[in-house]
Amino acid sequence: MSAALTHLGAKGEANMVDVGDKAETTRTAIAEGLVSMRPETLKMILDGDAKKGDVLGTARIAGIMAAKRTHELIPLCHPLLLTKISLDIEPDATLPGLKVTALARVTGKTGVEMEALTAVSVACLTIYDMAKAVDRAMAISGIRLVEKTGGKSGDYKADAQGAGQ
Amino acid sequence: MSAALTHLGAKGEANMVDVGDKAETTRTAIAEGLVSMRPETLKMILDGDAKKGDVLGTARIAGIMAAKRTHELIPLCHPLLLTKISLDIEPDATLPGLKVTALARVTGKTGVEMEALTAVSVACLTIYDMAKAVDRAMAISGIRLVEKTGGKSGDYKADAQGAGQ
Amino acid sequence: MSAALTHLGAKGEANMVDVGDKAETTRTAIAEGLVSMRPETLKMILDGDAKKGDVLGTARIAGIMAAKRTHELIPLCHPLLLTKISLDIEPDATLPGLKVTALARVTGKTGVEMEALTAVSVACLTIYDMAKAVDRAMAISGIRLVEKTGGKSGDYKADAQGAGQ
Amino acid sequence: MSAALTHLGAKGEANMVDVGDKAETTRTAIAEGLVSMRPETLKMILDGDAKKGDVLGTARIAGIMAAKRTHELIPLCHPLLLTKISLDIEPDATLPGLKVTALARVTGKTGVEMEALTAVSVACLTIYDMAKAVDRAMAISGIRLVEKTGGKSGDYKADAQGAGQ
Amino acid sequence: MSAALTHLGAKGEANMVDVGDKAETTRTAIAEGLVSMRPETLKMILDGDAKKGDVLGTARIAGIMAAKRTHELIPLCHPLLLTKISLDIEPDATLPGLKVTALARVTGKTGVEMEALTAVSVACLTIYDMAKAVDRAMAISGIRLVEKTGGKSGDYKADAQGAGQ
Amino acid sequence: MSAALTHLGAKGEANMVDVGDKAETTRTAIAEGLVSMRPETLKMILDGDAKKGDVLGTARIAGIMAAKRTHELIPLCHPLLLTKISLDIEPDATLPGLKVTALARVTGKTGVEMEALTAVSVACLTIYDMAKAVDRAMAISGIRLVEKTGGKSGDYKADAQGAGQ
Repeated sequence: MSAALTHLGAKGEANMVDVGDKAETTRTAIAEGLVSMRPETLKMILDGDAKKGDVLGTARIAGIMAAKRTHELIPLCHPLLLTKISLDIEPDATLPGLKVTALARVTGKTGVEMEALTAVSVACLTIYDMAKAVDRAMAISGIRLVEKTGGKSGDYKADAQGAGQ
Repeated sequence: MSAALTHLGAKGEANMVDVGDKAETTRTAIAEGLVSMRPETLKMILDGDAKKGDVLGTARIAGIMAAKRTHELIPLCHPLLLTKISLDIEPDATLPGLKVTALARVTGKTGVEMEALTAVSVACLTIYDMAKAVDRAMAISGIRLVEKTGGKSGDYKADAQGAGQ
Repeated sequence: MSAALTHLGAKGEANMVDVGDKAETTRTAIAEGLVSMRPETLKMILDGDAKKGDVLGTARIAGIMAAKRTHELIPLCHPLLLTKISLDIEPDATLPGLKVTALARVTGKTGVEMEALTAVSVACLTIYDMAKAVDRAMAISGIRLVEKTGGKSGDYKADAQGAGQ
Repeated sequence: MSAALTHLGAKGEANMVDVGDKAETTRTAIAEGLVSMRPETLKMILDGDAKKGDVLGTARIAGIMAAKRTHELIPLCHPLLLTKISLDIEPDATLPGLKVTALARVTGKTGVEMEALTAVSVACLTIYDMAKAVDRAMAISGIRLVEKTGGKSGDYKADAQGAGQ
Repeated sequence: MSAALTHLGAKGEANMVDVGDKAETTRTAIAEGLVSMRPETLKMILDGDAKKGDVLGTARIAGIMAAKRTHELIPLCHPLLLTKISLDIEPDATLPGLKVTALARVTGKTGVEMEALTAVSVACLTIYDMAKAVDRAMAISGIRLVEKTGGKSGDYKADAQGAGQ
Repeated sequence: MSAALTHLGAKGEANMVDVGDKAETTRTAIAEGLVSMRPETLKMILDGDAKKGDVLGTARIAGIMAAKRTHELIPLCHPLLLTKISLDIEPDATLPGLKVTALARVTGKTGVEMEALTAVSVACLTIYDMAKAVDRAMAISGIRLVEKTGGKSGDYKADAQGAGQ
C-alpha cells in the first residue's frame, strides 16, 4: 500500500492520479452502510415494502444512478464505464434499521471503490429522505469498503466487525 | 410530526410531496458526519493541510457542489435555491479522524436537511477517496441531522451524543 | 442596454424568451403517453409488478427525476422550482400496453408543460429499456399535453381522443 | 431473444445487467419518431428553417446532447463511449409534421438502442417546446427502434409500417 | 465595492456567500468574448453559416445551455432562476474572428455576471471545437463583463476598449 | 490538416464526427489561459493563498471537474475516459494576473484538446467569480492550445508568443 496521499502533487496541490499506464483488468468492489432508526419507522418502511416496495425500491434506484455519477461528485475520481452495479437493502432488527450493500464492477484502469461507496451513501440518504417526516433522528453509519478485487494494489477484505465503527 | 411516510401515495407508490401551498420562510439545517481512520492517516492529511490544505479544501468544495445537486441525486427532493452552504472540517483526535459539519440555508417552501446531509456525505466520501491509498479501512459514520429551524414542522435539535449511533 | 442584444430573435435565431415580467402564479400541466407492446410482454411486466413493482416503480422514479432536469435537456426551457411532480402508470389491455400520465406543478413565471412531457417521455423510455430484451418492437406514441392551467396564455384541455394520433 | 426481463434480479428487484463478459464490438442502432402538428405550424417551422434553421437545428443539437446523457436518465442503462450520434429531421406532409431519425454507434459491450431512442425523444420534445406557443395540440408518436446491428442478441430490423402503432 | 474576497471565510476557507438577506431585484449582466482565427477559417464558418448557420447556431445553443448550469461548474455560485439568456455572435474582420456577446437576466438575490461569462466562454469553446480541424491556432480572448445593472453593489460599465486586454 | 469543418454534414448540419474507426492511442493536450487583474487584486489572492490557498485551490478543483464534463458542455464532443487531468496556476507579475495551464490525457479514439481548454476556461471563470467583489474589470484572455500529441492528425506545438493574441 502506498505511503503517500496519491492525489497530492509535489507542491501539495490536488490532482487526478495518472492511470494511463495501468492495465485494464476486471475490478470489483463491495461496500456497505447502515441506516439506524426507531423500530416503528423500520416497521412502517417494511410494511410499505410488503405492498409496493417503494422506499427500498426508490433507494436502490437512487444508489444505482448515483454510482454512475461518482466522477461528477468526487473531484479526483476518474470517469469509468461501470459494467455492473447492484444494490441490496436488508432489514436489521438489532440496529434497528436497514443495511445497504452495493457491488460495483468495471473492466478498466481504476478501481470502483468510490462507485460502490457512493451508491451506498446515496441509497442511505434516500431512505433518510423518505422516512424523515416520521423520524428525524435516523443516523447513517458504518459506510465502509467490505471487499475489493482486481487491480495492482491487490485484493482487500475488511474485518468482520468493520473498521472505524 | 407526521405519522405516515409522506413520499408514498395512496397506493404506496413513490412521489414528490406537493409543497406548493407551503409558506416561503427561511429554513436552516445543520448536519454532521465523521470519517474515522488510523492515527497516521489523520496526521498525513493534517500535515498536508498545514502546507496546502488540499484534502480538506477539496472535500469542502466537493460538499458545497454536491449540496447544489441534491435534487438530482435524491429522487423525491425538490429543487431549491440555496442561499448559503458552508462546510467545516475539524480533526478529532479521539476518533481518530475528521468531523464534517455542514450548514444549508434557503428562503423557500421546503427544508434543507437533505442538502446539508448530502454535503456532509460527499465531503466524507472525498476524504475517503483522497486518503484511500494509505488506509482502505476508513469508515464513515454518525451522519445525522444536528439542528433544523424554520418551516411548518417546527424546529429540531438532536441529542448531544447523537441519535442512532 | 446594448442596442444589438435587444434585436436578438429578429434574425430568427434561437433564444430563451424573457419571462422576467410574467406573474408568479400556480401553473399545472398534465401530459400522457403510451407504450404499446405484445400481450405477453405486458403480462410479464405486470406479473413482476405484482411481486415487486420494479418496472413500473423504476419508470416512475426515472420520470420524476427527468422532470427536474428538463431545463438541462430542452435548450430553451427556463429552470424552475417544481413544487410537485407525480406519475401514474396504468395497464391498457386494448393497446395492449401501458399508459403513463404525469402531473407537474410550479409557482412561477413559466408553464410546466415541458416538465410533464419530459417526465412521460423518460418514463416510457425506461419501460422500453427494461422490457426490450423480450420485445424490441415496442413503440412509444400518443405523447401529448392533456391539460394545462394557470399562466397568461390561459387554460388548455385536449380533445378526448387526442390530437395528432 | 431472452424470455425474461433482464433488469430484474432473482427477487424481482431492478438492477443493471452485468455486461463485463460481453465482447467489445461495433454496435449501431437507428431509431425514429414523429411530431404531428397543424399544417400551418409545419409551414411556420419550415419557413423559419429556410432562413436560419433554428427549430430543426436546435432540436438536432438537443438530441445529440441528450444521447450522451442517456445513462443519467434511464436508471439501468450502462455508461458508454458513443463514437457517433447523428440526427436527421425531415418534414412529412402527410402527417403533417416532422420525422426525426437518429443513428447511434459505439464500440463497446452494450447496445445503443436507448441512446438512439433518447436522442429522438428529446429532439421531438424540443420541437414541441419551440412551437408550442402556436400549437399546443402537437403530439409525439411512433418512437421505435428501426434497426440494430452488432452484439450477441443479433441484428434487428423493424417492419416497414412500424410495430405498435 | 467590497475590500475583501467575499468567498473566503474567517479562516481563509472557500464558502458560498450568504445571500438570504439580499433583496429580490431584477439583475442583468452583459459579457463578451472573442475568438481570433485565420481569415480563411472565418470565411469557412461564415460560408457555412450562410447556408445552415450551424457553427454559430450550435455555439449559441451551447452558450445558452451552459448558462443554466453555471452553478454546477463554478463552485461558489448560487443556483438561480434565469428569466432570460441570449447570445449574439458577430464576425469581426479586424481580428479576424468572431465576437460573442451574452445577456443574462434574473429576478433574484444574486447577480448574473457568472452566467453571462459562462455562456460566452462555452460558446467560444464550441466555436473552437467545430473549427479546430482547420485551425488549431485559434485563441479565445477578451472575456470580460461589459455591463451589470441591479443589485446592492450598484451598476457597472466597462471601459470601451476593455480592461485587462 | 483537414480542409473542411469536420462537424458539418453534407447538408451543412451539425453532427458528431464518427470516431469508431480511429485507433486507441495515448493522446495528450496542454492548454493555457490568463486572468489579468489589478495588482492589488493579485496580491489579495496570493496573500490568501499563502494562508489557505483557497482561490487557487478552488479554481484548480473547478477546472478538473469541468474537464470531466466537457462532452456535456460542448455539443459535438465525444465522451471519453480521461486518465489524467492536472492544472497549474501561477502568478504573472507582468500581466499582472494569473496564468492557468491544464494538461489532459486519454487512451482513446479522440483528442483531448477540448478537455484541456474547458479546464482552463472554468478555472479562469472561478478565479473571476471569487475575486469579482474587489475587481469587476478582470479579463480572461489567451485561452489557446499550447501542445498536442498523439492521434492521426499529428502533433502540434503553438508559437511561443501564442497565436491569435
